[in-house]
Amino acid sequence: MNQPYPSALLENAVNEFSKLPGIGRKTALRLVLHLLRQDDQHVGSFAEALLTLKKEVKYCSSCHNISDSEICNICSDTSRNSSVVCVVENIKDVMAIENTVQFKGQYHVLGGIISPIDGIGPSDIEITSLIERVKNKDVKEVIMALSATMEGDTTNFYIYRKLAPLNVKVSIIARGVSVGNEIEYTDEVTLGRSILNRTPFDESYKLS
Amino acid sequence: MNQPYPSALLENAVNEFSKLPGIGRKTALRLVLHLLRQDDQHVGSFAEALLTLKKEVKYCSSCHNISDSEICNICSDTSRNSSVVCVVENIKDVMAIENTVQFKGQYHVLGGIISPIDGIGPSDIEITSLIERVKNKDVKEVIMALSATMEGDTTNFYIYRKLAPLNVKVSIIARGVSVGNEIEYTDEVTLGRSILNRTPFDESYKLS
Repeated sequence: MNQPYPSALLENAVNEFSKLPGIGRKTALRLVLHLLRQDDQHVGSFAEALLTLKKEVKYCSSCHNISDSEICNICSDTSRNSSVVCVVENIKDVMAIENTVQFKGQYHVLGGIISPIDGIGPSDIEITSLIERVKNKDVKEVIMALSATMEGDTTNFYIYRKLAPLNVKVSIIARGVSVGNEIEYTDEVTLGRSILNRTPFDESYKLS
Repeated sequence: MNQPYPSALLENAVNEFSKLPGIGRKTALRLVLHLLRQDDQHVGSFAEALLTLKKEVKYCSSCHNISDSEICNICSDTSRNSSVVCVVENIKDVMAIENTVQFKGQYHVLGGIISPIDGIGPSDIEITSLIERVKNKDVKEVIMALSATMEGDTTNFYIYRKLAPLNVKVSIIARGVSVGNEIEYTDEVTLGRSILNRTPFDESYKLS
């Protein structure tokens, strides 16, 4: 029912934008028309930023986080504890945990999660490099910080079994009632877990 | 409070994306990481589409719609009635009206609307070219199809006064109760206008 676009160039740009996740054709058109109203330099720097990123981006050879150098800022920061490694699915999780300012160890970015439905097996993500890292570096604790989903659980168990023969402590982030959430509206699995994993309480207890 | 991005290239790309309207930094990061997962060719064609559009896009010399050629498809379509010109704010309005399949005349894209608050005056939009077009071409009717806002009204009146001395009929699209909307919830200005502008009714009346 939709009439063709008045310009093939416009349609092409809209097509490219609407390939992005969560961007429909209407939003794509709005974004393209916005760019079209900007000056040449603006659009040039937009395109250039993407091309440069794609061409020159590196992944840290130790933790596989996105990095501008061979070793990322976090891995090369000597004030951080290299004997504690937090395993996460992707770079967004690294940024989320860094924002808590609660963790001073290093990370290992899997770059995905075991998901048979999506055809992602253990060899598609950075598990072997994690095992090698634990074997060869002085890693004392591996903290699993994956999503509380079936895929996260599968990945947790797979990695746990690979790490079990090695002399390393494996822990998992706490599941419990979210700070600010009401007990009444917390799902029963989370609530049950929060009772099992209760922590000591005294006058010094603070939520954050 | 936010920690820096792990890569300056990544941050740069996120900055560029978050300049787009309605795209926050979280969405920008999601889009950039999505592109990063695609192959080089995909990202290349994305950037290329934008650069080519910006560099090569033309505006129809008659109606100022976006076009791949000197004269756009609509203006060069001889089956359309060139004596009726519909005045719209932008290309999205052209597409919306084309989608109704109710209009077989031509358009004139103002490329904006008179808005003193935004510093947009009559000389910033394609009003002079509209007057010239009416003067020099055989235009019998100009249909004003601008938004029903104060800026739209201002622009309507400004153009009307410019056209008044010329031998051309000026009309305006009907304001009334939206098809599908309930009378009860229609604002009173629209409802009042719909009563004043009532149309003849008989057995052949159809909404669409």
